[in-house]
Amino acid sequence: MFPYIFRYEISPHICVHLECKGVLHSSQSDFQKIEVVESLDFGRMLVLDGVINLTERDEFIYHEMLAHVPLFSHPDPLQILIVGGGDGGTAREVIKHEGIVSIQQVEIDKEVIAISKKFFPSLSASLDHPKVNVLLSDAIQYVRQSKQKFDIILIDSTDPAIDQSEGLFAVPFYKDCRNALKEKGILAAQIGDLFFEKDLVTDIFDKLKEVFPVVRLFRAPVPSYTLVPYSFAFCSTAIQPEMELGLSRFSKIFQTRYYNEQIHKASFALPEHLKMEFEN
Amino acid sequence: MFPYIFRYEISPHICVHLECKGVLHSSQSDFQKIEVVESLDFGRMLVLDGVINLTERDEFIYHEMLAHVPLFSHPDPLQILIVGGGDGGTAREVIKHEGIVSIQQVEIDKEVIAISKKFFPSLSASLDHPKVNVLLSDAIQYVRQSKQKFDIILIDSTDPAIDQSEGLFAVPFYKDCRNALKEKGILAAQIGDLFFEKDLVTDIFDKLKEVFPVVRLFRAPVPSYTLVPYSFAFCSTAIQPEMELGLSRFSKIFQTRYYNEQIHKASFALPEHLKMEFEN
Repeated sequence: MFPYIFRYEISPHICVHLECKGVLHSSQSDFQKIEVVESLDFGRMLVLDGVINLTERDEFIYHEMLAHVPLFSHPDPLQILIVGGGDGGTAREVIKHEGIVSIQQVEIDKEVIAISKKFFPSLSASLDHPKVNVLLSDAIQYVRQSKQKFDIILIDSTDPAIDQSEGLFAVPFYKDCRNALKEKGILAAQIGDLFFEKDLVTDIFDKLKEVFPVVRLFRAPVPSYTLVPYSFAFCSTAIQPEMELGLSRFSKIFQTRYYNEQIHKASFALPEHLKMEFEN
Repeated sequence: MFPYIFRYEISPHICVHLECKGVLHSSQSDFQKIEVVESLDFGRMLVLDGVINLTERDEFIYHEMLAHVPLFSHPDPLQILIVGGGDGGTAREVIKHEGIVSIQQVEIDKEVIAISKKFFPSLSASLDHPKVNVLLSDAIQYVRQSKQKFDIILIDSTDPAIDQSEGLFAVPFYKDCRNALKEKGILAAQIGDLFFEKDLVTDIFDKLKEVFPVVRLFRAPVPSYTLVPYSFAFCSTAIQPEMELGLSRFSKIFQTRYYNEQIHKASFALPEHLKMEFEN
């Protein structure tokens, strides 16, 4: 343990310097560099290839929004597929929905799971839940070959700018996902920063539109990621997030820290300068 | 002009480094240090005592939200008081409402106006509008002594952490503002960062609650200010921002880049962890 500054780029011209207590872990897996860093303001952080993947302080915002927005938009979600998400944070939120029958998680990097079990036990505990089945495999291949159909697919990957994730932001993968969804299925994915990486997000959004009739943008601020609300995509064949099919179930069956009915609706409100581009 | 890094603290443990082309202006007025800096990602920035006051790239978000949220919540706003706002950005938004009869602006620092006229003419042009009357004076004294009554008071000051602004975040000033408002009047104010300065924002919010029966929090991301959506307070004796008295007027009478009806409503949605504290 030694005090040091963790630096990360928000854009090529903006760098954030975080004061840290030290690096708790550093290793190279078959897929990426994995670090665990103890920061003063965000607490413990999981860093993959130099990019903050989650922090103790604000991971609840990201995981609650990625899981609950699609799950509460669906009338009766039973089978869930999580792509990536080896830390367990997304699964932790999904299992709060008691009606869920099974969660298939496909994570390519077993080291992420092992390190999360050691350093982020409150997230990774979900992976040992009886409804969760973890497969160590490439999700692109898995989805292409899968015969199982899902109500919800959650894409909890690293950023599209990172090489190994590139195939998870491509039309062939999205087509396979659509095939792996039931008729009323919903796909949700994290898609990036709309202020400093707007071209990248727009490109992903356009690819999703090639595959899904309904593609909607929703946002939530995750302060350790970037300076603006982070973007997610909500995709389906017909269901819109305002149909509130599931929200009637949200009568405090379980506790959340970020998500609620008003936030669900508000997360889809787009400022005037984004409406033309991102509203269908 | 020389390339350099502009540094600003988000918290005592987080520092943002912005790559800049150079400093266009630097001077010391009777009240504060005033700088104009040309940054690569945010364009030209007005910096007061080392703190970013506005940037060309995102000032529209701050000024549209501070002005239009209260103005569209009021059935018939006629007389407006702007406290501070020497750059003219808030006045620029207010004069878009054609029904406005007069805008009284009270700015303590004439240098801010002079420098804005030189470096930010698209903002400061509003100060020459026939409906706008600029008074160079201390707003605390002005409001205490004013016999005029206003429909809307907009507090567009520097941060409460800055000495000269302290009196603008205090109960006596808020009481004088309430006295200076007509019966259906609304006050809106910028109140800070709810993630890294939560105690400060909570304290201001509590002071407003001592004076106004309705005090509501609304938020908008201003990326050059901090990592999370920036907080504003909406205060009135009875009017709630969802009453939509004025929103029917918002049928594209004028152009905005951030504000619209959905954003108006969404800006008041609070995450679960803030609801208990900030919802009346």
